[in-house]
Amino acid sequence: MRIAIDRRRLVDRLQEQANIGGIDGERGLDRVTLSEADREVRDWFRDRMTDAGLDVRVDEVGNVFGRRPGADPDAGTVLLGSHLDSQPHGGIYDGPLGVLAALEFVETLEDEGITTERPVELVNWTNEEGSRFQPAMMGSGVWAGALSQEAAYEATDRDGVRFVDALERIGYRGDVPAEPGYDYDSYLELHIEQGPRLDDAGDDVGVVTGVVGFQWGEITFEGQANHSGTTPMHHRRDALVGAADVITGVRRIPGTLGERTVGTTGVIEADPGSINIVPGEVTFTVGFRDPDDETVAEAVDRVKGEAAAAAEREGLEWRYEERMSVESVDFADRCVDAVQSAADDRGYASQRLVSGAGHDATRVASVCDAAMVFAVSEDGKSHSPQEFTDWDDCYAAADTLANAALDLAGVADE
Amino acid sequence: MRIAIDRRRLVDRLQEQANIGGIDGERGLDRVTLSEADREVRDWFRDRMTDAGLDVRVDEVGNVFGRRPGADPDAGTVLLGSHLDSQPHGGIYDGPLGVLAALEFVETLEDEGITTERPVELVNWTNEEGSRFQPAMMGSGVWAGALSQEAAYEATDRDGVRFVDALERIGYRGDVPAEPGYDYDSYLELHIEQGPRLDDAGDDVGVVTGVVGFQWGEITFEGQANHSGTTPMHHRRDALVGAADVITGVRRIPGTLGERTVGTTGVIEADPGSINIVPGEVTFTVGFRDPDDETVAEAVDRVKGEAAAAAEREGLEWRYEERMSVESVDFADRCVDAVQSAADDRGYASQRLVSGAGHDATRVASVCDAAMVFAVSEDGKSHSPQEFTDWDDCYAAADTLANAALDLAGVADE
Repeated sequence: MRIAIDRRRLVDRLQEQANIGGIDGERGLDRVTLSEADREVRDWFRDRMTDAGLDVRVDEVGNVFGRRPGADPDAGTVLLGSHLDSQPHGGIYDGPLGVLAALEFVETLEDEGITTERPVELVNWTNEEGSRFQPAMMGSGVWAGALSQEAAYEATDRDGVRFVDALERIGYRGDVPAEPGYDYDSYLELHIEQGPRLDDAGDDVGVVTGVVGFQWGEITFEGQANHSGTTPMHHRRDALVGAADVITGVRRIPGTLGERTVGTTGVIEADPGSINIVPGEVTFTVGFRDPDDETVAEAVDRVKGEAAAAAEREGLEWRYEERMSVESVDFADRCVDAVQSAADDRGYASQRLVSGAGHDATRVASVCDAAMVFAVSEDGKSHSPQEFTDWDDCYAAADTLANAALDLAGVADE
Repeated sequence: MRIAIDRRRLVDRLQEQANIGGIDGERGLDRVTLSEADREVRDWFRDRMTDAGLDVRVDEVGNVFGRRPGADPDAGTVLLGSHLDSQPHGGIYDGPLGVLAALEFVETLEDEGITTERPVELVNWTNEEGSRFQPAMMGSGVWAGALSQEAAYEATDRDGVRFVDALERIGYRGDVPAEPGYDYDSYLELHIEQGPRLDDAGDDVGVVTGVVGFQWGEITFEGQANHSGTTPMHHRRDALVGAADVITGVRRIPGTLGERTVGTTGVIEADPGSINIVPGEVTFTVGFRDPDDETVAEAVDRVKGEAAAAAEREGLEWRYEERMSVESVDFADRCVDAVQSAADDRGYASQRLVSGAGHDATRVASVCDAAMVFAVSEDGKSHSPQEFTDWDDCYAAADTLANAALDLAGVADE
C-alpha cells in the first residue's frame, strides 16, 4: 500500500519552524542546542505530536519521542526522526526536514485512519550538531550506548555551562532513561544530502546505503624559529614548509585511492606567528573519509609517509596524533530496499549513495536496522543560510520516507 | 694610530647591563622598550657616560646622546652606538654590545688622554626592536626623518598605551629636537650578526658593506568553505591548498634568484578553522630580502605568479597587499674601508657581508656616511636567550669598532 502525504501541510510546518530562531533578513536558523530557540521549537513540536494523538516522552538527555501504537503489541517499533537543533548560522532544512517529514507521515496515518502493524515512533534527537557541546550526535549517541550519559552531562560550552544544566534550564531533562526502552525493528531518517551528488545528477531523492568512516588526526612539525632576514635558506628548518608539503599531499592522496575518498586540512597554527620569523612549530589537522575503512587507514598511512618525507627534506621532527576515528556503517538491506522501492514506486529518479557526513542514523544503526533518505541540497551547500532544497525536493524525500516507513510498519488488517 | 681597549672593563659592563631586566635562570633579557627595565638601563648608561665626562642630552623621542668635543669645533661629528632595548625574551648581546663597545672606545680615549680631531658622540637609540611599539628602528627613524615624530608618539602597544605616554612615564621624553642637531661626519655601529655566516666561516669579525632591502606582503585566497565529509574533492575550492602551493614556492624562489635571497612565510590564518570544514579563506605573509632591490622585486613578481597559478588550479580569488617595503642600503666606502683596515691591522680574520636584518644604521645612513661591524653569533641564534657571542668575539668586534672610529675621528696633534 502506498500513501500520499499533504504537501501543503509539510511546507507550512517547515516555514513555521523556520520562524523559531530565524535569522533576520536571511533564510537561515540560529537554533543552537539547548538555547531558548531550541526550547521554543521543542515546545512547538511537542504540541504538534500531542495534537496528532501521540504519547510524548522525554528522556534523560532530552531526546523527545512521540509514540503511536500498532495493531500488534509485541511487534518491534519503527522509529523515524532527525534533529531540530541547528548550527549557529545554519540553514532551515538541516535536521527539521527529517523531523517534520516523520510527523507528516503519522499525521497522514491519522488522516487516512490507518492502523499499522508495528508501533511507530517519532524522535527529535538532542544536540546533533555538536557546535555548542561536543561531541556531535550526542542524544542519539547516549541512547545507542556509544557515549556515556555522564560524559554528555559534563560537556561544557565556551562559557563553561554544563550540558546537564543547560538541559535543566530549558525544561527538557526528562525522567525516562536514555536507552532503547522498547524493542526497535528499524529506524529511518530523512536528511538533506549536504553534498552536491543528487543536484549534479539531477536526481529527486537519495537512497543512502551507509555512512563513510573517517579518521581525524593532528600533525606537528618542530623545526627552528629563526630570524627571517639573517638566516640563509640552507640553514632553515621551516616547520611551515613541511606543513605545506603535507597539505599538498592531503589534496593529492584521495585521487590515488578512490572516487569517494576525501581528505582535508581544516585547522593550521604556526608559531611564533611573526612576519619576521621562520616558523619553528606548526600543528595542523588531517582528516580522511571513505566508505571503506581500509581505504581510510591507507590514506592515513600515506599522509604519514608525506610527513616523514617532508620532515626529512626540511630537517624537522614530526608526530601524528589521532584525534577521532569512526568506522563506516553499512545500512541493513531491508531498510535500504524499503527506501528504494518507495522511491521507485512513487516515480522518483533516485541515486544510491553513501553519506559523507555522520548523522543520528550512524548511532541508531547499532541498535536496530536503519537506513536514510537524502533530499537534494542545491549546489551541496549546508551549514549556512545559503542551504536550499526546493519544496518539490522536500516533498519527494518526505513522500519516499512515508512510503518506506509504511512498508516497514505494515498496515494492519481491518 | 691604533688603540687597545680594556677587555676586562668591556666584559664587566656587558655583564652589568645583563642584570638589568635579566631573565631568571637564563642568560637572556626581558628589557622591552620604555619598560621599567629600560628606564633602569638608561639611567645606568647615562651615569656611565657622565662618569666618562660626556655631555649627555635626551631628545624628544628618548634617544640618548653623550658628546665628547674634538679639537676642531667645525668638524663633523663621528657618531657611535646601537640600542639597549631587547625583545621580550631576547639575548644579552643584541644591541647592548654595540652601545657598550662605543662607550669602551671613549673611555679608552679618556684613559689614554687622546683628543680627537672631530667630536665623538655615543647614542642609545629608542625602540630598535619594535616588539612593543611598531615600527622597529623608531628612534633612529624619527631622528633621520624616515618616520614622523607624531606617528611615533601615537603608536600604541597591545594594552593601548601610547608611545609618548610610556616615554613620559619612564622620564625619557627629552626636550632636544629629534633630528641631527650637529653636522655628522659618519656613523659606526657594532652589532651581533644574528646569522651564521661568520660562525660558519670561522671568521673573527664582519665588515658590513650594506643592508639588504626587503618587501613584506600579504596574500589572501578566497575559495568556498564547505563540509569536509560531503564535498567531493573535485567540487572543492580550498583556500589552504592554494596557500600551501605558494608557501612551497616561497621556499623555492630564493634558490632560483641569488645566493643571498631569502623568502619566508611567517604568519598564516585559515578560516573558519574547523577540523571539519574546507578552509574558505586563508591569509598569509610573504617576505623576500636581497642586497639587490631588483632581485626583491623579481621575487615578489614570481610569488604573485605562484599565487595566480594556485588560484587557477583551485578555483580561488586572490590578492596581494604590500605591507612594507624597504630599499637596500650600500654603506659609504670610506666607512667600510675604515672598518676593514681596523680589522686587518688588528689581525682579525674578517668577512665582508651584507646585513640580512635592518639596524639603526639603515636609518642613519641617510643622514651621513655609515658602516657596521658584525660580531660572531654562535650558530646564528638571536632573539632568544640562546643568543651567544664569546668574550673573544665581543672583544674583537669592539676593538675593530674602536680603531675604525679613531681612524674616522682623527687624532689631534699634541
